[in-house]
Amino acid sequence: MPPPSGVSPEPTADADTGADSVAIGKLYAVLLAGEYSAFYRLIDESRMAPDVPSRIAIARMAASEIRHFDTLAEQVSARGLDPVAAVERYRPIFDQYHQVTTPKTWYEALIKAYVGDGLAADFYNQLSGVLPAEAQSVVAEVMSQTASSEFAREQVSQAVAREPRLKSPLTLWGRRLLGEAVTHTQWVLAAEEEVTDLLFSGAATLAGMTTFFDVIAEKHAERMRDLGLG
Amino acid sequence: MPPPSGVSPEPTADADTGADSVAIGKLYAVLLAGEYSAFYRLIDESRMAPDVPSRIAIARMAASEIRHFDTLAEQVSARGLDPVAAVERYRPIFDQYHQVTTPKTWYEALIKAYVGDGLAADFYNQLSGVLPAEAQSVVAEVMSQTASSEFAREQVSQAVAREPRLKSPLTLWGRRLLGEAVTHTQWVLAAEEEVTDLLFSGAATLAGMTTFFDVIAEKHAERMRDLGLG
Repeated sequence: MPPPSGVSPEPTADADTGADSVAIGKLYAVLLAGEYSAFYRLIDESRMAPDVPSRIAIARMAASEIRHFDTLAEQVSARGLDPVAAVERYRPIFDQYHQVTTPKTWYEALIKAYVGDGLAADFYNQLSGVLPAEAQSVVAEVMSQTASSEFAREQVSQAVAREPRLKSPLTLWGRRLLGEAVTHTQWVLAAEEEVTDLLFSGAATLAGMTTFFDVIAEKHAERMRDLGLG
Repeated sequence: MPPPSGVSPEPTADADTGADSVAIGKLYAVLLAGEYSAFYRLIDESRMAPDVPSRIAIARMAASEIRHFDTLAEQVSARGLDPVAAVERYRPIFDQYHQVTTPKTWYEALIKAYVGDGLAADFYNQLSGVLPAEAQSVVAEVMSQTASSEFAREQVSQAVAREPRLKSPLTLWGRRLLGEAVTHTQWVLAAEEEVTDLLFSGAATLAGMTTFFDVIAEKHAERMRDLGLG
């Protein structure tokens, strides 16, 4: 897949244009597009929800995506970038991720919501050390695990305990989600050098990235065990 | 249409069961189901949105429905009622309203969002006098007009100014929305005597209801003029 194109959200002249500030603005712009894309996909994928409590839980997760979106949009604007241009520039890569990971059952949808939420939290935990203090609190807020995703964990682990034949296909599904998430993250990093430099600074970039994705994979394996999978 | 049926959200023994408290609990239960139904419909109807700013505005309106939903769910639970039972009991009447008012164009969807938001605000303004102080603040919060609906007003009034041929069909559409909203509100009131007594108390019920719906119609006409219609 080619790097994202479109109207580049370049900062305007009066914004703080330090190298880190530009990179942080781009990081926020990427996360902003991710929240936008996640909101609409989550609602789409909730069509399979079997009952009212499930649909309430999904609606709450979706509402928290929009709260995160608003926080990021404010930060993006404060850096002289246009939130709409940011969404238009980066959403194709998220839409592409969602397209290749369209769930076929309600349990697949729940695992996707849970895994996505968890990967975002891991991503933040690993990166918080390299971000300036102010950016840490913004990213912590928008990447923290939502209470609603616990709902997904309970439903899936109970279903797998009840119907062991679900275990093998859902384990494969979880592995696929991780693979696609890593691939798509790497595409973004390849296209946005400043963001890569910010997150994996200096000569240790490649080694740093390898460790980063190794830790992500370990955390994912723990999470799959929590679901009763893998 | 028959009155709503299903699991009745009757209060449990340990809740405050004063007559007003029961009626307020039922009023909240009805509004709760309305927010739930509105959230999913709004997202469905946003499929016609032509661009990213429109989809952002709709997502924000939807997120505020969920904030309102959470406020009401807390109040419903505090009165010993089950929010899920409340949604299951009353959502058919809202789903029915949405089904007979499914927009066919993006402008119809915008007018529906704007009119629905405005009717909720009018409903509250007229009723606040008869509610106990504590209930006034809850209802004020969940029925207040959202900032995002201003977005709808601007888009529609500009479109009508630009394309005058839109005016006549969109005016008819606005009239239809009002008619269906009034009819469906009357169905709820007919089915829930305690709520009707709370809102239009005593001997003056029928006269009070007539005045109520007259004021709603006047406010609606003002709102249509704001949109450049009627």
